[in-house]
Amino acid sequence: MGSKEKILVAALLLFNRAGTRPVTTNHIAKEAGVSPGNLYYHFANKQEIIREIFSQMSSLFDKITPSGSILPGSLEALDQAFRQITEAEWEYRFLQKEMVTLIEQDPLLKDLFLERQNARIVGIESCIRAMIELGLVCSLDEAMIGRLTQVIWLVAIFWNPYLMLKGEPVTRARISEGIELIRLVISPYLVAEKTAAIMSV
Amino acid sequence: MGSKEKILVAALLLFNRAGTRPVTTNHIAKEAGVSPGNLYYHFANKQEIIREIFSQMSSLFDKITPSGSILPGSLEALDQAFRQITEAEWEYRFLQKEMVTLIEQDPLLKDLFLERQNARIVGIESCIRAMIELGLVCSLDEAMIGRLTQVIWLVAIFWNPYLMLKGEPVTRARISEGIELIRLVISPYLVAEKTAAIMSV
Repeated sequence: MGSKEKILVAALLLFNRAGTRPVTTNHIAKEAGVSPGNLYYHFANKQEIIREIFSQMSSLFDKITPSGSILPGSLEALDQAFRQITEAEWEYRFLQKEMVTLIEQDPLLKDLFLERQNARIVGIESCIRAMIELGLVCSLDEAMIGRLTQVIWLVAIFWNPYLMLKGEPVTRARISEGIELIRLVISPYLVAEKTAAIMSV
Repeated sequence: MGSKEKILVAALLLFNRAGTRPVTTNHIAKEAGVSPGNLYYHFANKQEIIREIFSQMSSLFDKITPSGSILPGSLEALDQAFRQITEAEWEYRFLQKEMVTLIEQDPLLKDLFLERQNARIVGIESCIRAMIELGLVCSLDEAMIGRLTQVIWLVAIFWNPYLMLKGEPVTRARISEGIELIRLVISPYLVAEKTAAIMSV
């Protein structure tokens, strides 16, 4: 592992453990086993490290949902994407916890975040349209597709913070509960004759 | 206004403006126009002020949804409660932004929060049961009531943070969008012959 990567791994560990506030670049350099000078060779400041970690997480999401589309148009694929996204969000949980505050403090991070969020929302909409075209979901107007997408998006991004608020660890079982909520939201719009087979997978 | 109340008003103003972190008890005393000694007569520290503000917000919620029930069993009452809750959450927006972190730092606040959250979740469940008894909502098993409640709760508590993440101000129009999402979630379960009249109100 190069020193840049070591710094990012150490920063993620410390941010997840203690939040971004008490962690200094000196702490990160020490945890990474590099000199402060080496850290400053790679990163101008802590904000730049946070932005880089955000980009790492975004790349991970891109792998889960390639080319902006959240899934190829099936409920199982939606489940799978939700599970992987929730696990990735848990891996980068300090970002989920602090995002509103971090964005306020860093306009560059805000731009990054909004760009990624829009791409993912467009991805969910494409997925719903794909399911409509495949005849899995009944015909819906644009306003309905928009609102369904927002509910799914809200459940997906806030399921982890919700569990954290309850003080509950994010286990695979709890992640599955979040998936059931997404299924609940979409299930009334599934075409009846195909629903039973899909829901019982 | 007594000095205790002045301190709470000043603290809420400063916390909403800058977050809890950079605000000291000295800042609060100065903004409130009281001496630091007077502040410490009322509050042992900043955490105690935050807990008191949380209790204020909870009392406001109790007024909106009296006796633990979120509504007497109609969609209009659900809309009304959602609107008032969202506006109250906006008034106390620093709590929404920082809740996960604040809870981690203060076990007493966590206990308060969990107790209130449980009461409000029970309230939403009672409301759904009331609508079933009134024949407005079709019969649902306990698991479905539980999942519906969780989706409604997630939308209700995270609608403001979601708008904040998008960098959008929380206006009345945006609050109405959140209400439409709640309606979307509940509408497939409305009993058909009564739905049209209710949804068009």
